[in-house]
Amino acid sequence: MDFTAQARAAKDASRALATATRATKDAALHAMADALATAEADVLAANATDVAAAEQAGTAASLVDRLRLDPSRLAGMVDGLRQLAALPDPVGDVVRGWSRPDGVQVRQVRVPLGVVGIIYEARPNVTADAAGICLKSGNAVLLRGSSSALHSNTAVTAALRAGLERVGLDADAVQLVTGGREVTKEMMAARGLVDVLIPRGGAGLIEAVVTGSQVPVIETGTGNCHLVVDADADPGTALGIMVNAKVQRPSVCNSLETMLVHRDIAAGFLPRALAVLAEHGVTVHGDPEVAALDEAVVPAEEDDFTGEALSLDLSVAVVDDLDAALAHIRRYGSGHSETIVTESRRAADRFVAEVDAAAVLVNASSRFVDGGELGFGAEIGISTQKLHARGPMGLAEMTSTKFVLLGDGQVRA
Amino acid sequence: MDFTAQARAAKDASRALATATRATKDAALHAMADALATAEADVLAANATDVAAAEQAGTAASLVDRLRLDPSRLAGMVDGLRQLAALPDPVGDVVRGWSRPDGVQVRQVRVPLGVVGIIYEARPNVTADAAGICLKSGNAVLLRGSSSALHSNTAVTAALRAGLERVGLDADAVQLVTGGREVTKEMMAARGLVDVLIPRGGAGLIEAVVTGSQVPVIETGTGNCHLVVDADADPGTALGIMVNAKVQRPSVCNSLETMLVHRDIAAGFLPRALAVLAEHGVTVHGDPEVAALDEAVVPAEEDDFTGEALSLDLSVAVVDDLDAALAHIRRYGSGHSETIVTESRRAADRFVAEVDAAAVLVNASSRFVDGGELGFGAEIGISTQKLHARGPMGLAEMTSTKFVLLGDGQVRA
Repeated sequence: MDFTAQARAAKDASRALATATRATKDAALHAMADALATAEADVLAANATDVAAAEQAGTAASLVDRLRLDPSRLAGMVDGLRQLAALPDPVGDVVRGWSRPDGVQVRQVRVPLGVVGIIYEARPNVTADAAGICLKSGNAVLLRGSSSALHSNTAVTAALRAGLERVGLDADAVQLVTGGREVTKEMMAARGLVDVLIPRGGAGLIEAVVTGSQVPVIETGTGNCHLVVDADADPGTALGIMVNAKVQRPSVCNSLETMLVHRDIAAGFLPRALAVLAEHGVTVHGDPEVAALDEAVVPAEEDDFTGEALSLDLSVAVVDDLDAALAHIRRYGSGHSETIVTESRRAADRFVAEVDAAAVLVNASSRFVDGGELGFGAEIGISTQKLHARGPMGLAEMTSTKFVLLGDGQVRA
Repeated sequence: MDFTAQARAAKDASRALATATRATKDAALHAMADALATAEADVLAANATDVAAAEQAGTAASLVDRLRLDPSRLAGMVDGLRQLAALPDPVGDVVRGWSRPDGVQVRQVRVPLGVVGIIYEARPNVTADAAGICLKSGNAVLLRGSSSALHSNTAVTAALRAGLERVGLDADAVQLVTGGREVTKEMMAARGLVDVLIPRGGAGLIEAVVTGSQVPVIETGTGNCHLVVDADADPGTALGIMVNAKVQRPSVCNSLETMLVHRDIAAGFLPRALAVLAEHGVTVHGDPEVAALDEAVVPAEEDDFTGEALSLDLSVAVVDDLDAALAHIRRYGSGHSETIVTESRRAADRFVAEVDAAAVLVNASSRFVDGGELGFGAEIGISTQKLHARGPMGLAEMTSTKFVLLGDGQVRA
């Protein structure tokens, strides 16, 4: 089936899904979970084929790890679908409502977006997660996975579609989009058929979709996250947040990449911080002042401040004051999550007001900036754009709204 | 000044504006209004130059009318700025907030978008309206007006900037963008400097911006609006809404373009409708069944159903049932405002649930789909896209949000 035919089928499927009850959608999610669990042997065999090909091609171990499924990971995917069934349905929520003086009732109601396209890398768990979130929010989904996960994604999608059919829903609500690069281009040009594209993956993939797409895009961005240790920081709090944000899971977007230390606290704080970071196996890339403190510190290059390392590396610089810290974040930050540790109410207020990011934190770890931690129950990604959704996106962010006006013959004066 | 320098200056201005209090912004709006009123002679003289050039160039009378300012229209622009000062400030609103079990306080707070670009046609009143709405919502604005309104826009912008300076705000929060077509292209490529583009104008302008921009766009769309007269319609209600939606102001996007009449009511309803439409000077373009009723009816072509006439023309067709009406709207509708007149609860419910549009109306005129009529106080346009904002956009729609997390040292387990 060519892409346009797939997209039209998705549009048709989305119409029925838009008016499906929560009971129907939850039954579908459980049926999808059941079918995926039943297909375990097929899915793992398909995945083994992908993994073997990736290893033979010399793919980096970290990427092969993301590609690999095992019974435990598959159980996680199955469980994720069941958890979605337990969440409230955003569709039909009345966002606001009132009556006009002439008696016309006005309501703004949540409705699905329609057809959502997900473009993602070789992580077969995304196939089930994204399909589940789209289904629960009443959207049809076109899953454009990586060709290196093709066998895995095909097996997973087949199971999910079987689940949909079991409850009488149109299987074309969940479709895998295959084919060469020109298909991605068709997807990005499919205005009117695809309502939104969500790229999930590295900076290169996201940039290509954001700049190349005529379909509206929700940018799930990279995170170059900063921790500012203010003059009035409690050192113990700063050390605890530093370690948690850097070490707990360095490969994710809400982990720490750069620490900026106020000059007034640097002499006391930095030696302790360097010792603690060394204990946790973190390589510090420091500006000249930091590098002068410890020969284990790698002198920082400009590059160390611009990007997302996603590894146990931390860039550290001394800043003259809060203004300098804010200027550094303005220059290098990616608008994801920015943290200050301070006991000064004034510094905290300025930081919260002036930093332009999806999330701003005072005395708390940036690792909290996550749909699960914020209680959303499910997350399709973390938006670093300002339109539509900013920060962790849950089910409500996968909807649009519609104004409904109910009258009995009123006309405009 | 080249465009990039203008955009950087806007970005700088937007930073101070983002943390400006409501009192400061309201004082600025009044100062802008005062300055615009004081500049009346300059603005009208500049406008006379533009109008004379447009007339000499043979511009259509309706376009010249939109371009023309007079003391009353200028007073309307001044008054619009003062009305904005009276509206609540959306910035700082807490959209939702809660505490995590570990005590971290989470708040989602409204913040300005940053720098907004408006690309619009030769309507100098938009210059003041858009600048005022952006200012009130804490955004800097880059106004890309039509070259045929250059003198008018220059005079209006100069007055607005003088008002900003009078209250100590950076005048670069309001800038007119001039130059040839390549400047529009630069604007559409200015990702990172311009946060959102809003095209306001005809379908061609909007399409060019939506498909050409790498900056996120809010589409303020055209309105091919339908009125479905159901089998169970009250004929008097249908006639009243038909006349109001078609005749009251045919040149706007929420006016009626096509009426679809259920076959079961057509024989009784259509002759009355045609008579009433004729009284109001409306030219009916009818399908063969409608055309057979009255020789004044122009046989409808496919084109009559696809576009926005914005004139005293109405396309009329007979449909077999509600399914046929829904299919017609799916095929031809622009997703703006769709109306049904019916006494049937079942038909109303289906229409509301199944029509995919920014606004769906039952027994009320589509002319109510307007920021003023819905009580928003100000409107930057009516969005027909599904992301970010759908339907009339007021001040809140000109904002984004930011998550603020406040803790006392909490880290993720």
